Amino acid sequence: MHALVRRTHEERVLAALRAGGALSRSELATRVGLSRTTLSEITASLLRRGAAVVVDTDAATRSGSGRPAERIALDPGAGQFLGVDFGHRRVHVAVADASHEIIASGVQPYDDEPWPARVELALGLVDRLVADHGLHFGALQAVGIGVPGPFTGGAPGGTPVAWNRHATPDGVQAAFAERFGTPVVVDNNTRLAALAEAVSHPGGPGDLVYVRLSDGVGGGLVVSGRLVLGARGYSGELGHVTADPTGVACRCGKRGCLETVASVPAILAACRRRGAAVDDLDGLAAAVEKGDPVVDAVLREAGTALGRVLGAAAMVLDPVEVVVGGEVAHVAPVIVEQAAATLRYELYSVPTDVPRVVRASQLGDRGGALGALAALFHRSPLLAGYPEPEAAGPHHLRRSAQ
Amino acid sequence: MHALVRRTHEERVLAALRAGGALSRSELATRVGLSRTTLSEITASLLRRGAAVVVDTDAATRSGSGRPAERIALDPGAGQFLGVDFGHRRVHVAVADASHEIIASGVQPYDDEPWPARVELALGLVDRLVADHGLHFGALQAVGIGVPGPFTGGAPGGTPVAWNRHATPDGVQAAFAERFGTPVVVDNNTRLAALAEAVSHPGGPGDLVYVRLSDGVGGGLVVSGRLVLGARGYSGELGHVTADPTGVACRCGKRGCLETVASVPAILAACRRRGAAVDDLDGLAAAVEKGDPVVDAVLREAGTALGRVLGAAAMVLDPVEVVVGGEVAHVAPVIVEQAAATLRYELYSVPTDVPRVVRASQLGDRGGALGALAALFHRSPLLAGYPEPEAAGPHHLRRSAQ
Repeated sequence: MHALVRRTHEERVLAALRAGGALSRSELATRVGLSRTTLSEITASLLRRGAAVVVDTDAATRSGSGRPAERIALDPGAGQFLGVDFGHRRVHVAVADASHEIIASGVQPYDDEPWPARVELALGLVDRLVADHGLHFGALQAVGIGVPGPFTGGAPGGTPVAWNRHATPDGVQAAFAERFGTPVVVDNNTRLAALAEAVSHPGGPGDLVYVRLSDGVGGGLVVSGRLVLGARGYSGELGHVTADPTGVACRCGKRGCLETVASVPAILAACRRRGAAVDDLDGLAAAVEKGDPVVDAVLREAGTALGRVLGAAAMVLDPVEVVVGGEVAHVAPVIVEQAAATLRYELYSVPTDVPRVVRASQLGDRGGALGALAALFHRSPLLAGYPEPEAAGPHHLRRSAQ
Repeated sequence: MHALVRRTHEERVLAALRAGGALSRSELATRVGLSRTTLSEITASLLRRGAAVVVDTDAATRSGSGRPAERIALDPGAGQFLGVDFGHRRVHVAVADASHEIIASGVQPYDDEPWPARVELALGLVDRLVADHGLHFGALQAVGIGVPGPFTGGAPGGTPVAWNRHATPDGVQAAFAERFGTPVVVDNNTRLAALAEAVSHPGGPGDLVYVRLSDGVGGGLVVSGRLVLGARGYSGELGHVTADPTGVACRCGKRGCLETVASVPAILAACRRRGAAVDDLDGLAAAVEKGDPVVDAVLREAGTALGRVLGAAAMVLDPVEVVVGGEVAHVAPVIVEQAAATLRYELYSVPTDVPRVVRASQLGDRGGALGALAALFHRSPLLAGYPEPEAAGPHHLRRSAQ
């Protein structure tokens, strides 16, 4: 059977077990419309991998004669999943159990460390979480890792680009795969945060444009309920859309990119240029708190530029909602308000009878790690156009991570 | 069985029949991994609807004993498909057979006719094609119809918008459904043209941004190999992305939309404002031919604005290619060249080791009708996030159109 077809079948079996609890093989076969042969192969694989267990037989409730049938269920204690988000200044780790509940999480700050040091710090954080929470990683199913900068994974033709000074080393994936002996999925952490936002939506994962204002500006898209990779792995690069064709030079080589106006360093620099003594996010928060009109003007200009770029994205994609991530969205909510007002104008010609929401992210700094977990849980149904795991090397996620 | 699961199964059976020719039910069951019960339901439905036929039994080649098994195949003569594209000034009709070959096509021009008259003209054109080509529509499987302006089909919350003066009447769908007694799918004709472009790509349908410069400016997206509808059915509205925030008023109520710079009327008006006597596309072609510098400057400005908007879309989506449709792309190729140059700059920060193509459409005016056919052929695998046909009323396409 083709691997993709097999995965689709397996996914349906897992979904039936999630919805129906313990089921016999014949109940499963009926529910998912598969042959007994196909179903037996799939349940054997799930049992072998520890993703499912035989919980009992139907002997007690069985009315007819014949041999009692085993009932199969997912084992909520059978697996954990590790989500890791490497930022420029900290690593965030979250651990989820098989029922997708977060059972432990933590943050380890660092300065401008090289990648091997970051990896060591992350593994040390994992060790502390294991010790503090009495975790046993014997059943660790998979690791999802978010990294800064464009990342194309196994997609053809992708190499880290010049503006990403922390080009993702293959060593990160290998270090985790070696340490834990599990499949490891690596992706851009902002894209993963977009996935986390989509999954956290009460109505289920709908179409979403996500932008994160941080040291840089990045983004991610969920289209038709699926995370978009793009043809070369560069989808969602909202930070390098031109916001002002005559603007200042951007580190990417262009001028006037959104990042030159709406990143945290750009906002702080603009405040200082106009005489507001704002050194960091705390200083920005204090200036917003006291209503500094110069800082307000800078934030509104940044919000307007953000709203225009989001407007172009929203006219093209028609998403259900637009989410602004990054701490600055909470420290200086006026930037989100101004972006929402600008977006309202940009979408003036589209009917507004369905609510269109621009909101600040509620997931905060955890978004990347939660998204890395979501990528593991939802890999097949939510990720469209991603390379086949089988084709991307031995350390990529196989369906065994379900 | 859930309708969606059933459609997925049916699709797999149809794919197996396309690839494998005549197959017995047990061969089919093995190939697609379905139970005999599920498979029998699906083949019964296919036979009942005439999508498949019993071609023979395996009596001649059978080595074992027992009752000979029927072999089932798709019937290439069993169905035709009708694609109709209503433009502002003409209707285009294309007829394809079950093997997806175009067997007849034609165009009927009209002026600013009301919808009932357009429908009559279209049905008259179909009658002439039937007579001229000796067609028999007894096995007509489905009709796909493209209409101008945003169209949300059965999607919730969508109403035609103010800028679309030819709001799509429900009557179009009903008239064709009544006349032919088949499912009828209606969608925006520019979006259908995008689908036709994607399907015509030699490498198979890849990620694509399509824009059409005509009386207005519209567009469509294919993401992860699927045509995108958007949350409200308004995806791909590239014409109403702001190209110049201080530009002239647009009919949509905003100012400086791409349409105010790059639509055919906008280009002609800009040429005339600068003293070039250019009344229509023929006049534009003549001016381009003789190298009129004023006309060249207008076209380059329009191309630059187009390239910026396409640049924002391409930074967000990272498509394989960008296609510019509309006759003006052929009459005045400089607009495509300038857009390509601008897009190259806008995407400067993304590696270019994979070819990124901006090209004029090769499908020309037939794109909408071909896309309407493509939507029928590829409905399930290529259309993501589209409303479930079952939920959209009796006249929408069911899988019987395969």
